[in-house]
Amino acid sequence: MKFNINNFIKTNNQTSKIVDFQDLDHIDGVSISAVSAGLYKFKRDELVLFYFRDGANYASVYTQSKLISENLKWNKKIKAKKIFALLVNTRNANALTGSEGYDALKKISLDLSSKLTEIQKRDEDAPKQISSKEILFGCTGTIGEKFPLEKIKTSLPELVQKIKYTQNKLIWMKAAMGIITTDLKPKVSMAETKIGSSTIKIYGIAKGSGMIYPNMATTLGYIFTDATLSSSVLNDVLKNSIKTTFNAISCDGDTSTNDMVSIFSTNKVNHSEIKKYSDSKLKNFNKAVHDVLLNLAKQVVADGEGASKFISINCINCRTEKDAKNISFKIANSLLVKTAIAGEDPNWGRVAMAIGNSDSKINEQKLSISFGPYKIYHKGSLYKSYNEEKVMEYMKSKSIEIEVDIGQGVKKFKSYTMDLTKKYIEINADYRT
Amino acid sequence: MKFNINNFIKTNNQTSKIVDFQDLDHIDGVSISAVSAGLYKFKRDELVLFYFRDGANYASVYTQSKLISENLKWNKKIKAKKIFALLVNTRNANALTGSEGYDALKKISLDLSSKLTEIQKRDEDAPKQISSKEILFGCTGTIGEKFPLEKIKTSLPELVQKIKYTQNKLIWMKAAMGIITTDLKPKVSMAETKIGSSTIKIYGIAKGSGMIYPNMATTLGYIFTDATLSSSVLNDVLKNSIKTTFNAISCDGDTSTNDMVSIFSTNKVNHSEIKKYSDSKLKNFNKAVHDVLLNLAKQVVADGEGASKFISINCINCRTEKDAKNISFKIANSLLVKTAIAGEDPNWGRVAMAIGNSDSKINEQKLSISFGPYKIYHKGSLYKSYNEEKVMEYMKSKSIEIEVDIGQGVKKFKSYTMDLTKKYIEINADYRT
Repeated sequence: MKFNINNFIKTNNQTSKIVDFQDLDHIDGVSISAVSAGLYKFKRDELVLFYFRDGANYASVYTQSKLISENLKWNKKIKAKKIFALLVNTRNANALTGSEGYDALKKISLDLSSKLTEIQKRDEDAPKQISSKEILFGCTGTIGEKFPLEKIKTSLPELVQKIKYTQNKLIWMKAAMGIITTDLKPKVSMAETKIGSSTIKIYGIAKGSGMIYPNMATTLGYIFTDATLSSSVLNDVLKNSIKTTFNAISCDGDTSTNDMVSIFSTNKVNHSEIKKYSDSKLKNFNKAVHDVLLNLAKQVVADGEGASKFISINCINCRTEKDAKNISFKIANSLLVKTAIAGEDPNWGRVAMAIGNSDSKINEQKLSISFGPYKIYHKGSLYKSYNEEKVMEYMKSKSIEIEVDIGQGVKKFKSYTMDLTKKYIEINADYRT
Repeated sequence: MKFNINNFIKTNNQTSKIVDFQDLDHIDGVSISAVSAGLYKFKRDELVLFYFRDGANYASVYTQSKLISENLKWNKKIKAKKIFALLVNTRNANALTGSEGYDALKKISLDLSSKLTEIQKRDEDAPKQISSKEILFGCTGTIGEKFPLEKIKTSLPELVQKIKYTQNKLIWMKAAMGIITTDLKPKVSMAETKIGSSTIKIYGIAKGSGMIYPNMATTLGYIFTDATLSSSVLNDVLKNSIKTTFNAISCDGDTSTNDMVSIFSTNKVNHSEIKKYSDSKLKNFNKAVHDVLLNLAKQVVADGEGASKFISINCINCRTEKDAKNISFKIANSLLVKTAIAGEDPNWGRVAMAIGNSDSKINEQKLSISFGPYKIYHKGSLYKSYNEEKVMEYMKSKSIEIEVDIGQGVKKFKSYTMDLTKKYIEINADYRT
């Protein structure tokens, strides 16, 4: 099996380092296990455990949906200073499952924490007791189906027994594969950076290829670092990067009940102390986390259900960033724009239509629209040297860049999406069969 | 050719009388002509003229897009008390065409008004002069292409020469066919009602099968009546019915630059005088206009690009009507809901997901979801007698009714949409070829 993860990403101007699985190895303080719990009809891993022997500081952002899954309700109640495990399952979202779904997590957490406590006890240096309240859950899959408590509980002994204490590319691939649903490709990204003179690793995995809209719908993203950072600093790092990364992507305008992006620090590297986010020594780290998140977010879009093209929509010169974001997403979410791009048709009129549907006042005399390097519409009329044939040729690219200049200010926002193909319908009409 | 217009509508509980073309005949005061102007590569009518010899009172509602077509700019400037002509063209939206597009309409209106004035002069009773400012335009088609002024001007002599002064089912069909773009079926509806003891006709035609979202995207709808009503009363009639008819439908969440729904009264029936909308003698007329508009709106949805199923989404027991409308449309516009229905999958979890994306607070303990007669989710858990097989059987219907009970108030809103199929992608990826 060959994973050409970055098919689309590579052609898109990209600040992040592109990684493949061979680049991934061990991060101190993270142990991983992945097993099948028989949740799908066919055999695959569906249960992935990240185990932090010495605990990890952490921060999370969750969906903004008004209906959230039971595992997110669980996670939001966790008050522990350190987390010792993250358990992720696919196939079942544990959403709209009510108290039964919540109680299932309680039972699993009790069982898992006691099994992990046994392991801790074998180890002199390790904290001796892991509580059920020191475990986070990630769930993704079908909404409203009974949560498969028994199958998962039955798999816990094997899951714990198979924990790998030293990581390599194979176990990262297994973990990335174990959290996906309709994704065609597992998604990983990594960066190495410095805090002071110390080298820091930042590894990330993600899943998601449908219901991807601003607030990370059915996206799970997990970032692991060996840096020594408080949960409060991690929280600032994550919040500051999420807006222009996972919250800048859209596949179909739908938002899930289950979105979750978390960052965990195992505190294994003994670098100079960072007390707050604004510390200048954190600048490179911040940039690297942003790169990893953006790379993962772009992979999610590029692997959007049925995607044949990666699309970025840069909306510039708006009065406010809110306007820029609103216009950019109106274009990104327009089915007519997305189908035109699937058809390799430079139908810029549909982009104009989508701009017209934004909440902002638009002045045709100030508006310009470009596809890639080609200006098409310029301040009230077709651009004088517009050549449709050249743009038609450009539309054959795997990566399409749309730039919309509103001409009313200096604020901007760039969103990322993919085209809409018959394959999307195929995947989503037959999802549960 | 057989037009089975009401394929889907018939199965949906419907207050309006279902009509076919054979029911349509003459409305006094309306003359019609339709010709080809060679705007498409293949031969079809693209230019339709409605000519009111004695003028018509009128009212219109237009798109809420921030970028509107040149013909809507023209129409919005019209101050005339009576309109003498409505000229509709397809193939070119005359949007984002700038002053050149606007000037084209000016030239056409001058030419057409002078040609119509010649006709008026032949007739003793008719007003002797028609001004270019007494003409409205409807345009639909591709956005941003040069408006085909010359082709349209060249066709005006034939258009005027072919005016039919007595209408029948054939000319109505020709008119309904002449305004469509990607529609598979022409759309007409009619009602007869009474004002006092006088019989009143209400005939309507519409086009639209893509970019259909709340505010009537790429929908053209024209209602003609022989009632004697002021433009001000017509305006109230139209505004009061549009909210629950053309503004309650969505095909793909996109809104056009060109939407226009108008009502014209030829004042030929000499019934008791109606001074205002609130006059109780207008009640039946109001109801009949609403029925005609709803019927046309449903036909637009049923003919939605690639539609295989008609879907109605009734959101009840909300705190405010705004909440109800927002939730109903979140469901109607969810690609995941629409593809699940295309796949005949009772994936109610996606409906829940869409509800969660609304702007309202949702309480799972008060929420219920039904598909047709089958309650599925009820106040926090699966409904006790939920039988998935029965609902799977129900999903094979051509018309799917979703009811969402928010359980927080008494307000409601019903929206109409269709499923999302591969055919939609096919139509929209290849629109311009």
